[in-house]
Amino acid sequence: AKFLLVSHESVLCFVPVGGCKADWRPSNSPKLIDLLDDTVPGIGTYEDFNTIDWVREKSKDRDRHREITNKSKHSTVALLFSISDAFSGWLLMLLIGLMSGALAGGIDIAAHWMTDLKEGVCLNGFWFNHEHCCWASNETTFQERDKCPQWKTWAELMVGVSEQGSVNVLNHFMYVSWALLFAFLAVILVRAFAPYACGSGIPEIKTILSGFIIRGYLGKWTLIIKTITLVLAVSSGLSLGKEGPLVHVACCCANILCHFFTKYRRNEAKRREVLSAASAVGVSVAFGAPIGGVLFSLEEVSYYFPLKTLWRSFFAALVAAFTLRSINPFGNSRLVLFYVEFHTPWHLLELIPFVLLGIFGGLWGAFFIHANIAWCRLRKNTRLGHYPVIEVLVVTLLTALLAFPIEYTRMSSSELISELFNDCGLLDSSKLCDYSGNSGGTSGSVNATAANGLGARLAGPGLYTAMWQLALALVFKMLITVATFGIKVPSGLFIPSIAVGAIAGRLLGVGMEQLAVHNHERKIFRGWCSPGADCITPGLYAMVGAAACLGGVTRMTVSLVVIMFELTGGLEYIVPLMAATMTSKWVADALSRESIYEAHIRLNGYPFLEAKEEFRHKTLATDVMRPRQSDPPLSVLTQSGMSVEEVERLIADTTYSGFPVVISQQSQRLVGFVLRRDLVISLENARRHQEGVVSVSAVLFTECDPPASPSAPPAVKLHNILDLSPFTVTVHTPMEIVVDIFRKLGLRQCLVIQNGRLLGIITKKDILKHMAQMANRDPESILFN
Amino acid sequence: AKFLLVSHESVLCFVPVGGCKADWRPSNSPKLIDLLDDTVPGIGTYEDFNTIDWVREKSKDRDRHREITNKSKHSTVALLFSISDAFSGWLLMLLIGLMSGALAGGIDIAAHWMTDLKEGVCLNGFWFNHEHCCWASNETTFQERDKCPQWKTWAELMVGVSEQGSVNVLNHFMYVSWALLFAFLAVILVRAFAPYACGSGIPEIKTILSGFIIRGYLGKWTLIIKTITLVLAVSSGLSLGKEGPLVHVACCCANILCHFFTKYRRNEAKRREVLSAASAVGVSVAFGAPIGGVLFSLEEVSYYFPLKTLWRSFFAALVAAFTLRSINPFGNSRLVLFYVEFHTPWHLLELIPFVLLGIFGGLWGAFFIHANIAWCRLRKNTRLGHYPVIEVLVVTLLTALLAFPIEYTRMSSSELISELFNDCGLLDSSKLCDYSGNSGGTSGSVNATAANGLGARLAGPGLYTAMWQLALALVFKMLITVATFGIKVPSGLFIPSIAVGAIAGRLLGVGMEQLAVHNHERKIFRGWCSPGADCITPGLYAMVGAAACLGGVTRMTVSLVVIMFELTGGLEYIVPLMAATMTSKWVADALSRESIYEAHIRLNGYPFLEAKEEFRHKTLATDVMRPRQSDPPLSVLTQSGMSVEEVERLIADTTYSGFPVVISQQSQRLVGFVLRRDLVISLENARRHQEGVVSVSAVLFTECDPPASPSAPPAVKLHNILDLSPFTVTVHTPMEIVVDIFRKLGLRQCLVIQNGRLLGIITKKDILKHMAQMANRDPESILFN
Repeated sequence: AKFLLVSHESVLCFVPVGGCKADWRPSNSPKLIDLLDDTVPGIGTYEDFNTIDWVREKSKDRDRHREITNKSKHSTVALLFSISDAFSGWLLMLLIGLMSGALAGGIDIAAHWMTDLKEGVCLNGFWFNHEHCCWASNETTFQERDKCPQWKTWAELMVGVSEQGSVNVLNHFMYVSWALLFAFLAVILVRAFAPYACGSGIPEIKTILSGFIIRGYLGKWTLIIKTITLVLAVSSGLSLGKEGPLVHVACCCANILCHFFTKYRRNEAKRREVLSAASAVGVSVAFGAPIGGVLFSLEEVSYYFPLKTLWRSFFAALVAAFTLRSINPFGNSRLVLFYVEFHTPWHLLELIPFVLLGIFGGLWGAFFIHANIAWCRLRKNTRLGHYPVIEVLVVTLLTALLAFPIEYTRMSSSELISELFNDCGLLDSSKLCDYSGNSGGTSGSVNATAANGLGARLAGPGLYTAMWQLALALVFKMLITVATFGIKVPSGLFIPSIAVGAIAGRLLGVGMEQLAVHNHERKIFRGWCSPGADCITPGLYAMVGAAACLGGVTRMTVSLVVIMFELTGGLEYIVPLMAATMTSKWVADALSRESIYEAHIRLNGYPFLEAKEEFRHKTLATDVMRPRQSDPPLSVLTQSGMSVEEVERLIADTTYSGFPVVISQQSQRLVGFVLRRDLVISLENARRHQEGVVSVSAVLFTECDPPASPSAPPAVKLHNILDLSPFTVTVHTPMEIVVDIFRKLGLRQCLVIQNGRLLGIITKKDILKHMAQMANRDPESILFN
Repeated sequence: AKFLLVSHESVLCFVPVGGCKADWRPSNSPKLIDLLDDTVPGIGTYEDFNTIDWVREKSKDRDRHREITNKSKHSTVALLFSISDAFSGWLLMLLIGLMSGALAGGIDIAAHWMTDLKEGVCLNGFWFNHEHCCWASNETTFQERDKCPQWKTWAELMVGVSEQGSVNVLNHFMYVSWALLFAFLAVILVRAFAPYACGSGIPEIKTILSGFIIRGYLGKWTLIIKTITLVLAVSSGLSLGKEGPLVHVACCCANILCHFFTKYRRNEAKRREVLSAASAVGVSVAFGAPIGGVLFSLEEVSYYFPLKTLWRSFFAALVAAFTLRSINPFGNSRLVLFYVEFHTPWHLLELIPFVLLGIFGGLWGAFFIHANIAWCRLRKNTRLGHYPVIEVLVVTLLTALLAFPIEYTRMSSSELISELFNDCGLLDSSKLCDYSGNSGGTSGSVNATAANGLGARLAGPGLYTAMWQLALALVFKMLITVATFGIKVPSGLFIPSIAVGAIAGRLLGVGMEQLAVHNHERKIFRGWCSPGADCITPGLYAMVGAAACLGGVTRMTVSLVVIMFELTGGLEYIVPLMAATMTSKWVADALSRESIYEAHIRLNGYPFLEAKEEFRHKTLATDVMRPRQSDPPLSVLTQSGMSVEEVERLIADTTYSGFPVVISQQSQRLVGFVLRRDLVISLENARRHQEGVVSVSAVLFTECDPPASPSAPPAVKLHNILDLSPFTVTVHTPMEIVVDIFRKLGLRQCLVIQNGRLLGIITKKDILKHMAQMANRDPESILFN
């Protein structure tokens, strides 16, 4: 090759002339991606625990779509195929909605039955739960719907036990035994068949959606075992919910159904769009709130959420919600989990207790995250982690022993929340609704108030008992939830958080109510209580408290308010909810920036690049790129001039997942980028199938042959695995911009150049390590690639 | 300078040694942006009709934030400033919500009063509208709320007119006169003071949000004139709505309020976040649907919508909705514009008519867009455009003349829609509710049905009249709206579209109802009608039709369904709405891809890069970049070696808005990028303020001085205006990826390199031109930069 040397203003540069024509206009030859289907199998796929390249996946899909569109112009069959391909996304959404809705319905029914099984059995048929058993009975009155002769507690079934004390002890014993059995089955099943089925799954799903590969996490075994063990775990009475795991179950359904559609099976990016929609479906069936589910997916879980996905998620979430409703597991043909209707308007001054609830929620969130992470770290780093079965059994035993004596902890969390959210009706027989006006007991001072028509809102003895029991239940729930979230059974924390918040809210609500009733002639409370009507709604306080606590733990904002709005159906109550959620988020964020999910992601060292938090430091690309100044220079390939042996040695000596290809070691002018996996597969393939390839064969990344002696062995041409459009930034690029590019484009790596020379490389892991370092954390905590 | 020449494997490269140290590790010196505040005024700002650089703006904001955070560690005052800065965003949102809510309330009240003024006047006080006038009166019965002696039509006021015919003529005359007066005032005000106040404003706001500068479009004059003329235009009875313009009004409020906050005044990107929230506020006050408003902003209007904005938009939308409610312009203390409550469930088979409505909506959408754009193009290209005042008056005259005779076109569109959405109550006196059961008129065959309890749903004569009038109103509205949208007064098309859909829906609904009643013994209709209850709800059909038509015109999906959900408050009706909206979108998309807003953006040639549509073509960066193969080479600056005169000549000879800076003309190794505006300002500044700068002074873009003769004039150092991290792609990068990068990062230009050599540049305009060309449109239709 000849080179023309041009010297101009003290700068030298080279212009290649003749030889292998480095034409600056590339021919419109098919790019790398088009050839993937025809080339060696395995190229273009990913290994486990690796990060995907969104740009590449999206290109692949666009190429696929283009091909189908082109073909559809030529034949009717291809046209039909093209149409069916376009609608396959909608069909898939429909199937996900149906399957998730059906599974959620099944889980609800089974959990309900097994929860009641801990207390007793139905004589009409053991498959009836307590409520159904008494529905079938004719001897039930409206007042005592849950008492009927067909339903027998275990003690009642045993012959000869009649004394009240031993009845209680026996019932308690049976309660604990069943709880232990369920928990034991759950943990054994998880350990034996699907270790990924434990926990809530949301941290992992967030990581997967951000472009990480965890094989089997959304597989069929995980689905089956998670579904079964979720029922067992919920029924065992542990302080956990099924909402988070339902998101995982919906994502498993989506992933499995994706296998029936080539478009989604083969493309990791497209599949993630479906998974984003599936997480909306999960929340939709958990709460019966489709719009809230979509916003949850958008705000909390998803990474890449194009508008098309928004629309499809909404469709799938609706289908799932209606499937669930037609199964009707709660027997009330309501769509939502906790249906409430309030009638009393709130007063402006009530914003003060609502903000107080927000502060409580924020503090609880920060405390819970801190304590739970500390506990999980202890489990991870000490011998405690070696005995997961024993841990589960101990936690279950503790829960069951302590929960049974108090009515509010014995009942399932969902029932408790329902009761706390409810406004007291006239015929309500619950202790929470034991007001003097209902019980009829009046004293002197009460009489005066009763004459005012307000006696109906003065607390009776039952309400005082309920308050004490609720206060105990609050402390118990707060402590046991910290120990429960993270044990090796499926466990969500939406319901426990809501329960904590609802208890706190109800306590404050009743307190406020009594304050208002007792001081109804004071100036500030005048106008709050009108005769015959409610003063204030303690149920609304429970709901606001629930939103605040859930907000503090998960740091959800809009989606949380929208979910609550869907539960109440009234825009009137958005302002209290919003005030509490906002306060809760601010308080919790002031104490620690991370939500529970992000904290668990960091604990597990997943390579998750948080999209919400801005990178605030003033570093440049050059501070992050590898190699560092003291390191050996970057391992690069040259576009020609390297032999098979040299390339293989480079692969063996390093662990990098990709190599830049340059024109020559000296010029360091960038040509492209090749992935390790593709390179290894291609070289193996060439060694096996291409004739005459030996260790000294040249490896070429150019389209044209350089002049070679005729006796040389045939060259291995790897032009087709070369990515000719790698992303580059200059050394001067601020890291905030680099981070932004990685987030928005979903990059896996980026090359760093200065004045046209390749200087280094930045991978997603480098960025995460750098961020950890800047936040004074251990950069080595980031595992995986 | 000495250079070390290294020859290796037939490649030459240079390694600078000594002299000006080209250290590959840049010192951590402050970057360009930090110095902006201290340097020449004007640097870092944009000219009118130019595109902003999002990356630069966001960097500016991050630097600002960092500076405040750093300072806050040193003094209490700075800490307080930092806290107030952090909360200024929330304060701004609060102010926007309050201001927009108040303005919307004022507009509603004024428009209501002026609409009634066309018909008559209140004797108790001319400032009462018809409804308020009769509220104040004691002589009103519940049945005829709108008839009271205090309200006089114009004919009644005139002495001596008593014959019915002349009363009607006189009322018609007064109606037309007032309409013409209002329209004349509106168009004159718009022309005289704020030409930007016409139209709906949404296409321009979309363009501005995507990063375009249109000075004055959101200014105070536009706000004042738009508010006044909107009232006039709505009152004149033209077929237009106030919803689109309310978005514009809210954005004007936001833009004006931004001026009081340094954070938002100085930063174009931050201001756009606020404007995104403001468009949510606009829809929130237009419909009383805060969640729908936020989703509208997210789905339809916004370009860059981080989660923080989502939360803030929601807050602002809620504040605005509650401000509006406390003003209570509709006098019903409802939050929503059209409050409806349905009680009858819908039947699965009814999905067929709902889908039919969807098809109608899609067809109407496609027809409307096509016809309206054709009409607007005619106006633009012919002499018609020279007489906007006459056009407005002619359209108003036509509307007023034709609308008066029919009751449904005479009333304001909002009233019409309310009536169409409403279910018929027992006491409803409207013609639409004239069923035989109500009127009491029964014939032989009806008797049999009446015995069944279904007589109440058989159409009476009033309903038949109403049907004919509605059919005429439908045709009238469809045609007049095409001519109206685009005339030089503020005009939204939400309300006209909803009206068209509601009329069509109600017609179909009543038809279905009569079909079901008459065939109630047929198998498919059995079970639809139960005695005493409604068979089907025609009001629901009206609502579904409205959603379908609005969807066809605007191509909104989720936000539309959510807005409608907020109006009805019941998840039950989401499925019909969704079925219709989905069908409508598919039908309309099959006929033409663009929504009315996008069509208007294209008509006006705004540089808007659509984020929804994927770029499907298989072109590469090299096909789009300038210079083309036949063109002269790219105009570049060298980092040293150019004189002031040379640079000035380059500026004078070209119109490019920026120049790449390279090491030398021969090597074409990229150093950075400098904007024309910054360069011009800096050179002028140097000529004026720097001593000894003459035409032969060197212009340096490096930090270090190259050796120069001591007698040479002082060099102009422009290192601080050089962007050292310009975005680059390789020539081989597929355009789909380039388009993606431009969209996601909000770039203004991107440099194209091959093997380290700068080859060309791609600007946003180049991409838009290329896209126009690929879609077989005129690439020159893209105006502006």
